[in-house]
Amino acid sequence: MFETIVHPTLLIHRQRAEENIRRMALKARQNGVRFRPHFKTHQSLVVAEWFREAGIRHITVSSVNMAQFFAVNGWEDISIAFPVNVRAVREIDQLAARVTLHVLVESREAVRQLARHLTHPLQVWIEIDVGYGRSGIYWQEVEAVQQLAHFVREQPLLQFQGILTHAGHSYKARSREEVLEIHQESVHRMQTVRSALQEAGIEKVEISVGDTPTCSLAEDFSGVDEIRPGNFVFYDLMQWQIGSCREEDIAVALAAPVVAVYPHRHQVVVHGGAVHLSREFLTLNDQPVFGLVVFPEEKGWSRLRPDFFLQSLSQEHGLISVPAEYMPDIKIGDLLLILPVHSCLTMNLMRHQHNGILVI
Amino acid sequence: MFETIVHPTLLIHRQRAEENIRRMALKARQNGVRFRPHFKTHQSLVVAEWFREAGIRHITVSSVNMAQFFAVNGWEDISIAFPVNVRAVREIDQLAARVTLHVLVESREAVRQLARHLTHPLQVWIEIDVGYGRSGIYWQEVEAVQQLAHFVREQPLLQFQGILTHAGHSYKARSREEVLEIHQESVHRMQTVRSALQEAGIEKVEISVGDTPTCSLAEDFSGVDEIRPGNFVFYDLMQWQIGSCREEDIAVALAAPVVAVYPHRHQVVVHGGAVHLSREFLTLNDQPVFGLVVFPEEKGWSRLRPDFFLQSLSQEHGLISVPAEYMPDIKIGDLLLILPVHSCLTMNLMRHQHNGILVI
Repeated sequence: MFETIVHPTLLIHRQRAEENIRRMALKARQNGVRFRPHFKTHQSLVVAEWFREAGIRHITVSSVNMAQFFAVNGWEDISIAFPVNVRAVREIDQLAARVTLHVLVESREAVRQLARHLTHPLQVWIEIDVGYGRSGIYWQEVEAVQQLAHFVREQPLLQFQGILTHAGHSYKARSREEVLEIHQESVHRMQTVRSALQEAGIEKVEISVGDTPTCSLAEDFSGVDEIRPGNFVFYDLMQWQIGSCREEDIAVALAAPVVAVYPHRHQVVVHGGAVHLSREFLTLNDQPVFGLVVFPEEKGWSRLRPDFFLQSLSQEHGLISVPAEYMPDIKIGDLLLILPVHSCLTMNLMRHQHNGILVI
Repeated sequence: MFETIVHPTLLIHRQRAEENIRRMALKARQNGVRFRPHFKTHQSLVVAEWFREAGIRHITVSSVNMAQFFAVNGWEDISIAFPVNVRAVREIDQLAARVTLHVLVESREAVRQLARHLTHPLQVWIEIDVGYGRSGIYWQEVEAVQQLAHFVREQPLLQFQGILTHAGHSYKARSREEVLEIHQESVHRMQTVRSALQEAGIEKVEISVGDTPTCSLAEDFSGVDEIRPGNFVFYDLMQWQIGSCREEDIAVALAAPVVAVYPHRHQVVVHGGAVHLSREFLTLNDQPVFGLVVFPEEKGWSRLRPDFFLQSLSQEHGLISVPAEYMPDIKIGDLLLILPVHSCLTMNLMRHQHNGILVI
């Protein structure tokens, strides 16, 4: 299977990815919530088809360009889960003409500019910050949310849908308990905001949540209408470290040719660097780790070892620290497989490489 | 000039880039060394033309694919400054059929595989590690270098050119003095290796060096035959921090639309994240900095302020820390320009974005 690989190539383990999709879709169905997976993780029409086969019709993306890409490829209900870029209002209007398009707002100014330029109906969500501190109106500022919701509802073409959050601070958690605490707190805070909106006379307010750690580990989604995890389709070392997935759920690995071997310093250099994996790293045993190494096997790859890792990378080079007992077996021209720290960024890089992706 | 920008866009300041090229080309000429710039920084046919106009005919790339790209676009003397990937030997042979192609070796095994499969002549350099510790034969292992050079010269189609190094540890320097020390030490070590080769009866041995810090700061290149800097065409914050360039030499900036404003926390969110800038960061005032902010001006951009910076980024979001006095002036829909930490990685990402690059 691997003989034909010449250059760094991202392997996608189809069976694992499909199983990850199936499991999350089932969880959503059992909880009666809409499953609107985030497609920024894969940005791939091939992987998108696996979602379609699992019955998915509603999707999330993170930019207008990504929405355009999936819209022209037959996806008809798309949420751009990113604070609306008012400079793109004409492109948004064109998209809204052909698909059911959802956007996020958090300011009167953004709503005003949408209302001024739109000619097609648009689904509007207010983004809430439940504690991550990135974007959205802070959940305790309920008056601001009430006023903005009323303002949205006054605009003829804007259809207020509800409130949306990304509890990205779950990525900093390092145990199931921490993740579940964040999930419960987030949902509770979103419900507080919804109650405030209902008190202000807005009856129908959906709640959309969704990050891979909480969606992977929580079982109870009562009070939630929609989940939007993305990373779960591939998972990666960061999710494995958080505890969101098992090692054997990770569905991508970079096949990197060995180009130099250093027996004395227990290192090898592979063709596989920052332009393939991204510079995202995690800390294991107090060391920065840019990826963990596994060996090719007939149906995928071997188990990982935390002491067999990518210790540094430059633009194209990856410097790998090798356990002594493996050193004699590694030769120039071999392939080592590297489990990425952050599969979204790796996929974003590899999809632009010529023949950069291989589904296995 | 900036009104038409809708999405994150990498601005290339042509006048600065051309001046950076002119300055380095002049330095090479004055020192009587071949200037073989590294094109991995820009990977752009447009920027390549600016080099051609400055008289450049010899180039460096970091992968077989990049060599193919420039070969089909009219570049005829290309050095792949990366340990040769023996899995790509057929592609290398095809390239060697159409251009003068240079590769790096550091092991008998690589030489053996090249010799076995090649049908066209290939220029071969032995990579030397002068202290960076990434790839190459360590400079003190002169016997290994001598044996490998002889082995290369025994192969009919392999034409031994000399020894090549990348003193990448200059990137860790933080002063002109440190960089110059690394330069002198590197050149001295390369000359030691060359002497050893000459003692072994190999008369003609070129020395190729080249990283942006040493090539920017050193004035004396005696004993060197070729320099291969790449980053200098754009420079970036990392080079500015090392001291390789002045702030006003930096020739790229990411134009990022403001999508959310947080007056109370002195922060704004822009559309500009890890998929635009890469996750490379530097440390300023003990904080991780993913980019510094400047304002658009008629002929480029304003001066930077170290306290106006990109403090964190996710896939598409950039969270910017804003000095209090600027806060009232920043509005949704404005453009902020971000000087990147590592221009090579930023360019590698932005060249794949639709309309991602604008030459100003």
